[in-house]
Amino acid sequence: MHRIGFYVSSGFQMLDLAGPAGAFEAVNQQLGISAYRIQVLAAIEGVVANSLGMATPVASLDDAELDTLIVIGGPINQPPSADTQRRIVEASKRSRRVASVCTGAFTLAAAGLLDGRRATTHWQYAARLQRDYPSIHVEVDRIFCRDGDVWTSAGITAGIDLALTLIEDDHGFAVAKGVAQHLVVYHRRHGGQSQFAASVDLAPRNDRLAAALGYARDHIAETLTVERLAEIAGMSLRQFGRVFRAQTGTTPARVVERLRVDLARGRIETTTEPVERIAEAVGFGDAENMRRAFIRIYGQPPQSIRRAVRS
Amino acid sequence: MHRIGFYVSSGFQMLDLAGPAGAFEAVNQQLGISAYRIQVLAAIEGVVANSLGMATPVASLDDAELDTLIVIGGPINQPPSADTQRRIVEASKRSRRVASVCTGAFTLAAAGLLDGRRATTHWQYAARLQRDYPSIHVEVDRIFCRDGDVWTSAGITAGIDLALTLIEDDHGFAVAKGVAQHLVVYHRRHGGQSQFAASVDLAPRNDRLAAALGYARDHIAETLTVERLAEIAGMSLRQFGRVFRAQTGTTPARVVERLRVDLARGRIETTTEPVERIAEAVGFGDAENMRRAFIRIYGQPPQSIRRAVRS
Repeated sequence: MHRIGFYVSSGFQMLDLAGPAGAFEAVNQQLGISAYRIQVLAAIEGVVANSLGMATPVASLDDAELDTLIVIGGPINQPPSADTQRRIVEASKRSRRVASVCTGAFTLAAAGLLDGRRATTHWQYAARLQRDYPSIHVEVDRIFCRDGDVWTSAGITAGIDLALTLIEDDHGFAVAKGVAQHLVVYHRRHGGQSQFAASVDLAPRNDRLAAALGYARDHIAETLTVERLAEIAGMSLRQFGRVFRAQTGTTPARVVERLRVDLARGRIETTTEPVERIAEAVGFGDAENMRRAFIRIYGQPPQSIRRAVRS
Repeated sequence: MHRIGFYVSSGFQMLDLAGPAGAFEAVNQQLGISAYRIQVLAAIEGVVANSLGMATPVASLDDAELDTLIVIGGPINQPPSADTQRRIVEASKRSRRVASVCTGAFTLAAAGLLDGRRATTHWQYAARLQRDYPSIHVEVDRIFCRDGDVWTSAGITAGIDLALTLIEDDHGFAVAKGVAQHLVVYHRRHGGQSQFAASVDLAPRNDRLAAALGYARDHIAETLTVERLAEIAGMSLRQFGRVFRAQTGTTPARVVERLRVDLARGRIETTTEPVERIAEAVGFGDAENMRRAFIRIYGQPPQSIRRAVRS
């Protein structure tokens, strides 16, 4: 019997909890034994309302005997109190594994549990996590990320992928695959979470970086060197790269590539234009470069995507 | 304001509700207005326990003013009482759209709302739905299925795909895509739910069909004609096709192809064997035949799947 405790806070999204909980529950069904026992926890025993206003009964972190502590998404502008952070740290010490779903990474970070570690979170908040906690190595393009016994996952439904990996760790590939089949989710999703990120949300707060990205969008068919973008931003190459990374969690070259694949994907999905012409129009130069970028970012070539939309 | 009512029954799986509810909720967040109001309903106002034993407050179907009624998964061996069925039918008449998630299709079917319609359900129960309700045109290989104003969806997480389609219907492609990006799910998943089905679960109840499929598994590298399989089952070709379809919701050729791709996929994912050798070993003859079957069933070629597992 493996005891899983989900830490929730007021206004939590039900899907952050229901996704991974459903996966662990499916193991019990599949194996016909109580392989996992699931508890929902908060700082104090009582009732916590979710984002739909439904009341969820919770036990106290202090009393919980756990093997795995999973912190689900919560408000990122309001870290838990020092007292609650202490309870989370204590509970994590009694657990074999600690994990987070979505913005739950901010709670683990506030409690110091991600210091110096590799971690991920919802793509929309990855740059913010990197800014607020510079000691974390934020890996923005991951569905989930393991560093020792600390696992973090991307936004919302990525909690299901995380649970599948923990299940694979505990019970092997076949059981995890069976659970994925039962839930009708992909076991081992292709590509990173970049494929879900809307380019528009990469717009950094810094005006000079925003200007450089605006320039990139307007000149997407041209060769866009980092030197040229730094020049537009009015920064040295080194300063540009450093500020860019701090603000967006990634590199200028990656962002330009993502702009290109996003623009291309829109045209692939909604037009019948030849792939070669699209590749040229968005600055990939040739179709082979674009194909490689698609496979890296979406896990499949442009033609597969076009076929899937048609079918 | 569009009013969504989720009908739940005792022991419902939280993820069946939380998936689509999270999608509708994300529209409200994204648009910054109350585009959707979500209610959880049962025959009688009160409290219903989910499969994790958590109590969920519910309103009564009778009182609900609805635009869309969504029936989530419930027990398939115990259809709702005649009285509850009547309440569901009445609520459906007051709704613009009716939908089901997972085995919720059995509830709609019991209430007569799927008579003569095309519909889908969890792949594990599709054959059962076809047997129990012969007037339904069960489409086993769908993530969701629309027939007029009645929408049904495949297992569990397919409720999210269903919600995205309803959102696209109400608010257009861009809003639905934004919600998918926020939830970190694929908008328009590739392939049907076949890709999630474990071949072993296709085993029909009928002993003679089971014998034919057992033979197919044991002779997978050989040419397997429907004639040969009918012979093993001791039936005429016509009888075999008819009984097979009634029991499994699909054709012998499709099941053999699915056996082949499932066997091949396991080897693609877990070995470094050349694709050509795998194609031959599972009876595809050559790699090009296998590639086409993979694209049809999984939405991508074997090489992409192997690459994705490696990365």
